[in-house]
Amino acid sequence: MQFTAHEIGLLLNGSVEGDAQAVVKSLAKIEEAGAGSLSFLANPRYEQHLYTTNASVVIVNKDQVLTEPVKPTLVRVENAYSAFSVLLEKYNTIKLNKKGIEQPSYIHPSAQIGEGVYIGAFSYIGPDVKIGNNSKIYPNTYLADNVSVGNNTTVFAGVKIYFDCVIGNNVIIHSGAVIGSDGFGFAPKSDGSYDKISQIGNVVIEDEVEIGANTTIDRATMGSTVIRKGVKLDNLIQIAHNVELGSNTVIASQTGVSGSAKVGENCIIGGQAGVVGHISIAKGSQIQAKSGISRSITDEGKKWAGAPAVSYQDNMRSQVVINRLPELEKKVNELEKIIAELRKISI
Amino acid sequence: MQFTAHEIGLLLNGSVEGDAQAVVKSLAKIEEAGAGSLSFLANPRYEQHLYTTNASVVIVNKDQVLTEPVKPTLVRVENAYSAFSVLLEKYNTIKLNKKGIEQPSYIHPSAQIGEGVYIGAFSYIGPDVKIGNNSKIYPNTYLADNVSVGNNTTVFAGVKIYFDCVIGNNVIIHSGAVIGSDGFGFAPKSDGSYDKISQIGNVVIEDEVEIGANTTIDRATMGSTVIRKGVKLDNLIQIAHNVELGSNTVIASQTGVSGSAKVGENCIIGGQAGVVGHISIAKGSQIQAKSGISRSITDEGKKWAGAPAVSYQDNMRSQVVINRLPELEKKVNELEKIIAELRKISI
Amino acid sequence: MQFTAHEIGLLLNGSVEGDAQAVVKSLAKIEEAGAGSLSFLANPRYEQHLYTTNASVVIVNKDQVLTEPVKPTLVRVENAYSAFSVLLEKYNTIKLNKKGIEQPSYIHPSAQIGEGVYIGAFSYIGPDVKIGNNSKIYPNTYLADNVSVGNNTTVFAGVKIYFDCVIGNNVIIHSGAVIGSDGFGFAPKSDGSYDKISQIGNVVIEDEVEIGANTTIDRATMGSTVIRKGVKLDNLIQIAHNVELGSNTVIASQTGVSGSAKVGENCIIGGQAGVVGHISIAKGSQIQAKSGISRSITDEGKKWAGAPAVSYQDNMRSQVVINRLPELEKKVNELEKIIAELRKISI
Repeated sequence: MQFTAHEIGLLLNGSVEGDAQAVVKSLAKIEEAGAGSLSFLANPRYEQHLYTTNASVVIVNKDQVLTEPVKPTLVRVENAYSAFSVLLEKYNTIKLNKKGIEQPSYIHPSAQIGEGVYIGAFSYIGPDVKIGNNSKIYPNTYLADNVSVGNNTTVFAGVKIYFDCVIGNNVIIHSGAVIGSDGFGFAPKSDGSYDKISQIGNVVIEDEVEIGANTTIDRATMGSTVIRKGVKLDNLIQIAHNVELGSNTVIASQTGVSGSAKVGENCIIGGQAGVVGHISIAKGSQIQAKSGISRSITDEGKKWAGAPAVSYQDNMRSQVVINRLPELEKKVNELEKIIAELRKISI
Repeated sequence: MQFTAHEIGLLLNGSVEGDAQAVVKSLAKIEEAGAGSLSFLANPRYEQHLYTTNASVVIVNKDQVLTEPVKPTLVRVENAYSAFSVLLEKYNTIKLNKKGIEQPSYIHPSAQIGEGVYIGAFSYIGPDVKIGNNSKIYPNTYLADNVSVGNNTTVFAGVKIYFDCVIGNNVIIHSGAVIGSDGFGFAPKSDGSYDKISQIGNVVIEDEVEIGANTTIDRATMGSTVIRKGVKLDNLIQIAHNVELGSNTVIASQTGVSGSAKVGENCIIGGQAGVVGHISIAKGSQIQAKSGISRSITDEGKKWAGAPAVSYQDNMRSQVVINRLPELEKKVNELEKIIAELRKISI
Repeated sequence: MQFTAHEIGLLLNGSVEGDAQAVVKSLAKIEEAGAGSLSFLANPRYEQHLYTTNASVVIVNKDQVLTEPVKPTLVRVENAYSAFSVLLEKYNTIKLNKKGIEQPSYIHPSAQIGEGVYIGAFSYIGPDVKIGNNSKIYPNTYLADNVSVGNNTTVFAGVKIYFDCVIGNNVIIHSGAVIGSDGFGFAPKSDGSYDKISQIGNVVIEDEVEIGANTTIDRATMGSTVIRKGVKLDNLIQIAHNVELGSNTVIASQTGVSGSAKVGENCIIGGQAGVVGHISIAKGSQIQAKSGISRSITDEGKKWAGAPAVSYQDNMRSQVVINRLPELEKKVNELEKIIAELRKISI
């Protein structure tokens, strides 16, 4: 796809300065942009880039002052950053605008498929599956029996969703994610081996959730593992059986949440953190990367760090001393000697 | 599927109290159960749920005493918990009762397929592959050349098994697991680049093993990476080349075991732990989540924690002091001043 | 495949001692080798194995002295270790020597496929994809629109590569890896929910790179996430958007590198380590397993450990004291009492 500066001006309701016929084919950062690129300048601090960029068209704020001549065509808009975001989104929508059913695919006769849907080749749509309108099921994907997918949801290539799981509207699930695998539950036997505890629950993913590549979300033993509206999960995250993640909680890569833990809404959890099972985390909690949360957090909106985690401030204070420990120990040993001397004197 | 209280009574060899024609369609916890649900009460402490539940049928212990009127039909059995477990398992068996070969699938003419097998669409069964009786190979799965799968084994959708790997009987492998990828072995060259060391061994997975979603198990450089009978691995675990995991060892999510490490039988390893290469861990060891095991453990049946790990008790003790470090340092500095004063006096 | 000792002698330019017609079918370590195996002895310290091995043929150094009678046929070569490495590689090349296009596969008419290529069944080759000569695309793989793959590159089963990504020559990508999934970028809104930031960049993987099973590499927001020539990544690694990994850098399993971090060339990073976003790590840095790198490293070629990381030596020193903390605290408390006593006396 390609656009002229004139077309971009119309699209963004902006005014064009320079060659209105300048053509752009790609989007790029202003400092990396080459000929044929569209870029933007939002922060006046980086004004200098305007005079050195190779971009063909640059979106700028309405009131951008120029102190030197510029090569690219400018499109002046109310807010350059949000105008560019709109373009990014449009660009991606066009890129990902797939429709229709590719062959070969496997669609069970009992499955119900909505309007405007994309189903990629080698996708498996099992018995009683429901797929809403305008959803996209990319190639090599597996939707087991009775899975339900809402409207405008995107399931990227190679996602596996086990039976009975429920996926909402406007959800994005990235490649390789596994939804609804068995919870990790075993009953020890007297001979040291284990009996499997059957996992008959499911996973419910509400609207506007995004799930990263190769993330795994286990089905509940009974009932549901629940990912509430607006949750954002990065790649390679583990969500165990019967967990509940509150609305708009965001979790970074490689973090694990153990069985039956309840994470409140609007939490932010860094990467490689761990949450033990059967605890709850108050809403608005912010948990540092690599933390280990080993007991419930009841205070809302606080910051935590360390493994086992303490308040962020306490962790920082301890951490500082940890790095001075060899000196501290040395000092104590010296004091010990001095005291022994003093004692001799005083006795 | 649906059952009457009468049928459940026959199945569990229990006695029915109340409406024997009450119908149930699903299984649920007693406190979450709705109409049409079957539930159970095993612990007398939760007796109160019996009088408030909406379940249609509840399985109770033979000797359960009632102190108020109950709405659901009761089925009295010897042991309510184990009776319910039996039902859970039956329920799951029926849910997962797939048979036959779906099309399109790719089955090499030299492959040997047992009786009662399920092979899902888009599964790839390579040359010389052997699949035992009653095993289930779900859709979008890849079994490379000369892979062997035992009887009653379930390979869920999208599992990838590289050539020459051997999978036992009654094994469960969850979606996205990768078995037999190359061990991570490279020989440094003088120019700073690396030569790949070919990985020609395989992975052997013995009977009754369960492997979680997106877990990876690398093939041996030579010989075999071995997962012994009854091992249970959670999701997103890394097992490196030439590792051996002893019988009935259980490992939680996101833990990694490095190359050539030997883990004894009946060990329990928490989540996000790491084991360095070329060490061995004594049988019955219990390793806390997030631990880093950096040298061999020779004492059997002990608990370990921390990174690098020490005994669980020692780790607890150090951890307590870590949280008091700022105060400890302050105290030492104060003592230092006092001692300086005392010294002046004594001199 | 099978070879005689005579054929191996010709292949390796070695001299045969014993039965030149001895047949081998597999490669094994000398202490584990059975009849029909080919093995090697490079280190004279392990000479004893020569007299006890069941291998049928053993490759030895030219000057290997025998102090007892040997059963296997010997093949004497200049350097037994490198001769055996050559055989390992040949063995693997033959094992993995796939060619041709299996059916059913999905190849868009606009895709350009080179000479000598393997495309496994159920692989999806999207519009405008380019695949170079002698590359192997294993079954159940997904190459989205406009992906480009170089020559002699192997993409194992079930890999997913999103649109516009560029893969070099002689690259190996293991099963389940995901290349080009969306970077994890969201803009918070006033109501606590998030707007997705469109991710329109790509991933560029240069020549000679190896990527482990189920590793994930996110596409750049704009521009490219770049994996430079000769990088080796283990399994289950997370590489976030806009990261750049320098040439010949090696990263062990389950490590995560956050957004926009730049890792220099020839670095070695252990397993389960984390690198925060927007920092850079000097070339030749060595980072211990489980470390957390929280700020830029500017000194080249140094070792780091801990979370947050400090120099390896400092971390070791602090770690030693951590394990003595309970005693240190006890000592301080005792000193405190003594000082209190001394004070009383001196006052």
